[in-house]
Amino acid sequence: MSIKRRGNQTVVFQNPPVILAGYNVVGPKEGLGPLKDSFDMILADTYNGEKSWEKTEMKMLEMTMTKVAEKAKVPLESIDYNLAGDLLNQIISSNYAARQVGLPFIGLYGACSTMGLSTALGAMLIDGGFASKVLCSASSHHDTAERQYRLPTEQGSQRPMSAQWTVTGAGTILLADSGTGPKVTSATIGRILDYGETDANNMGAAMAPAVADTILNHCHDLQRTPDYYDLIISGDLGMIGLQLLLEVLKRSGLKLTNNVTDCGVLIYDTKQDVHAGGSGCGCSAVVLTGHILKKLQTKEINKVLLIGSGSLHSTVATQQGESIPAIGHAVAIEN
Amino acid sequence: MSIKRRGNQTVVFQNPPVILAGYNVVGPKEGLGPLKDSFDMILADTYNGEKSWEKTEMKMLEMTMTKVAEKAKVPLESIDYNLAGDLLNQIISSNYAARQVGLPFIGLYGACSTMGLSTALGAMLIDGGFASKVLCSASSHHDTAERQYRLPTEQGSQRPMSAQWTVTGAGTILLADSGTGPKVTSATIGRILDYGETDANNMGAAMAPAVADTILNHCHDLQRTPDYYDLIISGDLGMIGLQLLLEVLKRSGLKLTNNVTDCGVLIYDTKQDVHAGGSGCGCSAVVLTGHILKKLQTKEINKVLLIGSGSLHSTVATQQGESIPAIGHAVAIEN
Repeated sequence: MSIKRRGNQTVVFQNPPVILAGYNVVGPKEGLGPLKDSFDMILADTYNGEKSWEKTEMKMLEMTMTKVAEKAKVPLESIDYNLAGDLLNQIISSNYAARQVGLPFIGLYGACSTMGLSTALGAMLIDGGFASKVLCSASSHHDTAERQYRLPTEQGSQRPMSAQWTVTGAGTILLADSGTGPKVTSATIGRILDYGETDANNMGAAMAPAVADTILNHCHDLQRTPDYYDLIISGDLGMIGLQLLLEVLKRSGLKLTNNVTDCGVLIYDTKQDVHAGGSGCGCSAVVLTGHILKKLQTKEINKVLLIGSGSLHSTVATQQGESIPAIGHAVAIEN
Repeated sequence: MSIKRRGNQTVVFQNPPVILAGYNVVGPKEGLGPLKDSFDMILADTYNGEKSWEKTEMKMLEMTMTKVAEKAKVPLESIDYNLAGDLLNQIISSNYAARQVGLPFIGLYGACSTMGLSTALGAMLIDGGFASKVLCSASSHHDTAERQYRLPTEQGSQRPMSAQWTVTGAGTILLADSGTGPKVTSATIGRILDYGETDANNMGAAMAPAVADTILNHCHDLQRTPDYYDLIISGDLGMIGLQLLLEVLKRSGLKLTNNVTDCGVLIYDTKQDVHAGGSGCGCSAVVLTGHILKKLQTKEINKVLLIGSGSLHSTVATQQGESIPAIGHAVAIEN
């Protein structure tokens, strides 16, 4: 398979918005993984004192929204827009978190591509002159997603090896029109591709073509080769999806060095029994606000392309015989 | 109750984007209502040849997206972004419609405020210099919403008089950076308010304070009194919510003439047994693309403030004892 580009899909920012700070909260499993030192807060259990996992996810997202402003020493009420999304029906994690935060709110749904989408749109609002500061967020919770999309968590069903583990995590970045930090220099909003994958336990395969499409368009639009970036990182393709992505990019004629990886591959250790890797809106949100941002801040890396990747199906669509449409939204972040 | 303004919530467009065209598709019940002459396509039944109501809603939205471009004689592939949202879990109507349309896609969730949100964001993308043409859409379907949010439609349960009737309808506007037509001159992105309403059969009451808040901020930010507009129209407060809105605005000191109404009040005749009026993302989408746009195009009215109004709860949030957060997103449209 090779993909035909659309063309003209990338915007380059005139005054690239600055990432003043990032903040994340993760669950205990993520806190035992290889990226544990990059997280701001690790919960001791998946409830964190709340009465339901849904209320925990709302609270985690509310915390990242308020604490990122504290970290950057920016008064919360001086922020112009709050952009967020999550996996739950009617994005209740975002809506109820945003209710507590009180800022003008833009609700997004891009499934696991949401962190890419919120960052891209936030940067457009600032560079377009409509805001001086915005919050860009996404969240997921393993147990809320599992019982909504798949099976009752109490059932303990066996998962196929192609399945991914939804990350319990919330992440927020604070973007501003001035200040110090890595900058969002360009963004490529993806289009939806669907090559007929119907297995909701193999989302990496469903998403790989859409991520490839966005990378191909991004590189072509900006006349860049992949080696321009120190790191090209997809949101949550997992191990199977990442292999497919590399294969599709190669067949599409893109010359790759070994700078391509995936947040869902990095976040867990293979010993953690997560099968094909991590997934969920929170996956790229906590890897961006943790691992990636820290490497950019210490100048260990200087040019990153993050491609949030999302499967846009629902249980109802699947039950009605639909395949899984997917999308990838990319942001370039540079020192 | 009176509301304390936030301030500084409104953006004014330097080069106000033009509404080149609007297109809508409605169901049979809407086609029998007082606004029937303003609709582009009226379906003969609620399935329209599809195997499920969900597939019908996807198809309706796909039709409005493609036909609005035909109507404006704009090649579909020349459009930069497709912005849409709906009420269904994981916004499947929008995702599957956008899959067919093939443009770079931005998925939104604002419940019934979505048409206000998609129009406001679309205008920002154009005025910010990131696009020359965008599609802004929203949809709902009575039967998909009813069985998702409330009860199996086959059950035929009695509805309380405060309940509203979800509109079967999809609407899309085509915004552009140049051309002829009414212009989107300013936008006010709302914040979430929640005064503790827990009755999902009285969404007008849940939404009225958020709509009032957005109107108050809009008028204050632009130093306008409500009589600046020929028409101030909320999305789907219905009859109870509209009365509450007028009351809150009055108590907040806003001097009103009789130019305030609601899409959900206009779309059905009281004889159509819809109780408190119309609701759903499709309500303001089809009234904007039909009734309002036609009156603007004929210059019968010249200045309109549309406030999309959304209840941001879910069945899970309600079952877990949460009240209903609400939001209002406003766009000013002027000749």
